[in-house]
Amino acid sequence: MFIKSENNELIKKIKKLKDKKERYEEGLFFVEGTTNVLEALNSNFEIEYIVMSESFKEDIPFKKDKIVHTTDSVFKKISDTVTPQMIMAVIKIPEYDENIYIKENGIYVIADNVQDPGNLGTIIRSADAFGATAVFTINNSVDVFNPKVLRATMGSIFHIPVIPTSKEVVLKLKAKGIKVFATHLRAKKLVHQCNIDDKVAFVLGNESKGVSIEDLVDDFVKIPMTGEAESLNVSIAAAIFLYESQRQRLIKQE
Amino acid sequence: MFIKSENNELIKKIKKLKDKKERYEEGLFFVEGTTNVLEALNSNFEIEYIVMSESFKEDIPFKKDKIVHTTDSVFKKISDTVTPQMIMAVIKIPEYDENIYIKENGIYVIADNVQDPGNLGTIIRSADAFGATAVFTINNSVDVFNPKVLRATMGSIFHIPVIPTSKEVVLKLKAKGIKVFATHLRAKKLVHQCNIDDKVAFVLGNESKGVSIEDLVDDFVKIPMTGEAESLNVSIAAAIFLYESQRQRLIKQE
Repeated sequence: MFIKSENNELIKKIKKLKDKKERYEEGLFFVEGTTNVLEALNSNFEIEYIVMSESFKEDIPFKKDKIVHTTDSVFKKISDTVTPQMIMAVIKIPEYDENIYIKENGIYVIADNVQDPGNLGTIIRSADAFGATAVFTINNSVDVFNPKVLRATMGSIFHIPVIPTSKEVVLKLKAKGIKVFATHLRAKKLVHQCNIDDKVAFVLGNESKGVSIEDLVDDFVKIPMTGEAESLNVSIAAAIFLYESQRQRLIKQE
Repeated sequence: MFIKSENNELIKKIKKLKDKKERYEEGLFFVEGTTNVLEALNSNFEIEYIVMSESFKEDIPFKKDKIVHTTDSVFKKISDTVTPQMIMAVIKIPEYDENIYIKENGIYVIADNVQDPGNLGTIIRSADAFGATAVFTINNSVDVFNPKVLRATMGSIFHIPVIPTSKEVVLKLKAKGIKVFATHLRAKKLVHQCNIDDKVAFVLGNESKGVSIEDLVDDFVKIPMTGEAESLNVSIAAAIFLYESQRQRLIKQE
């Protein structure tokens, strides 16, 4: 298939996937760039189409009848970036059963009304790097299939389950004996003084309002800061929690 | 002074400060929002003007003749944000003598061709939070006075010296006995296995090309990753280095 017109029905449908409501109505999202497309191909995600423009010259191992070719100008209309890499995959939104991932052992990340796409994407990338079990998004966090979130994940969305859900997930984790942590500036314990190597969930709150589910948190800890900055970026706080948890696991093995 | 026209000379001058070349020609930059403006007022930075629009109603303690009032529509022309907070400070670019900050003790961060404004801003915010001595930017890193960098610093630019310089700064640090570290995926030592509590500099490289000054690095370390993600965001790597350094200092005091 070769598409020259941006009025083509398929092109119009893909263009709409930049919008959250349309994504969930269609049950589809897209990722851009060779790395992301190859990660998608190597994953269990179900790919609907691969779209590439005339100027994309690499070989992509995918069913020929599911590859859509377009002109560069048509591709630019569907891309979410200013200088597109001229390839994208249109993928089915996965349907995770969160109960499968809630176990008695595990490292969980809960994004509680995290609004900045770069922050959520970076949290997912770090959760993947440090071997977390799953990421849950609750309380109106930015949509995980937002193109800007996906860009910041650098393909990690294909490695770790990221599940939009509600705050009841925290109760399910607690019922399994998972201890729920959040940071607090006035907490007394520092993060490295707590046992967080396993069976832990870390709640990351909104960039300005913080955590909304304080009543469900088992323990508040502080990331030690000595400078004049009053707080850390939320994706930084997530990474430090996950790194410290990883460090404690490694030390146990030494 | 009340300005109603976007053709006013001062407004045209401020508008140009979004451009790096113009900033250095004028020797000026601007920050937006009440928090940043108050941080600027409490700092040693020299403020040229405070600009506020009609709809800004708070009191700002500053010389009346240096406060510029504008209409909302004029303010929107000079703002770098989509929904401006209607206040900004126009500030002289500080002239730091880097030699004053290069000592035999200290924690230094070197941003080596870091391109993403959010990444550099977040690195500066973390450097401030974890008590680093100074941040140096080298090799064509994004300009520290770029409005997007400043937004991500959350005011930390007023707490910690951030000095654009050249790679010779690394030699000056080494001459003082500061050990220069960078991360490497194939490094054998993990970051928590190295003594990094003091007298260290951390080089953070370009988002895709990595570190350009590998020949000047004393020791490569690895941030332990167990998941499938191949790397961490550069601002995350910086924060983990700085956190680990801070953790080691705290443990020594325990």
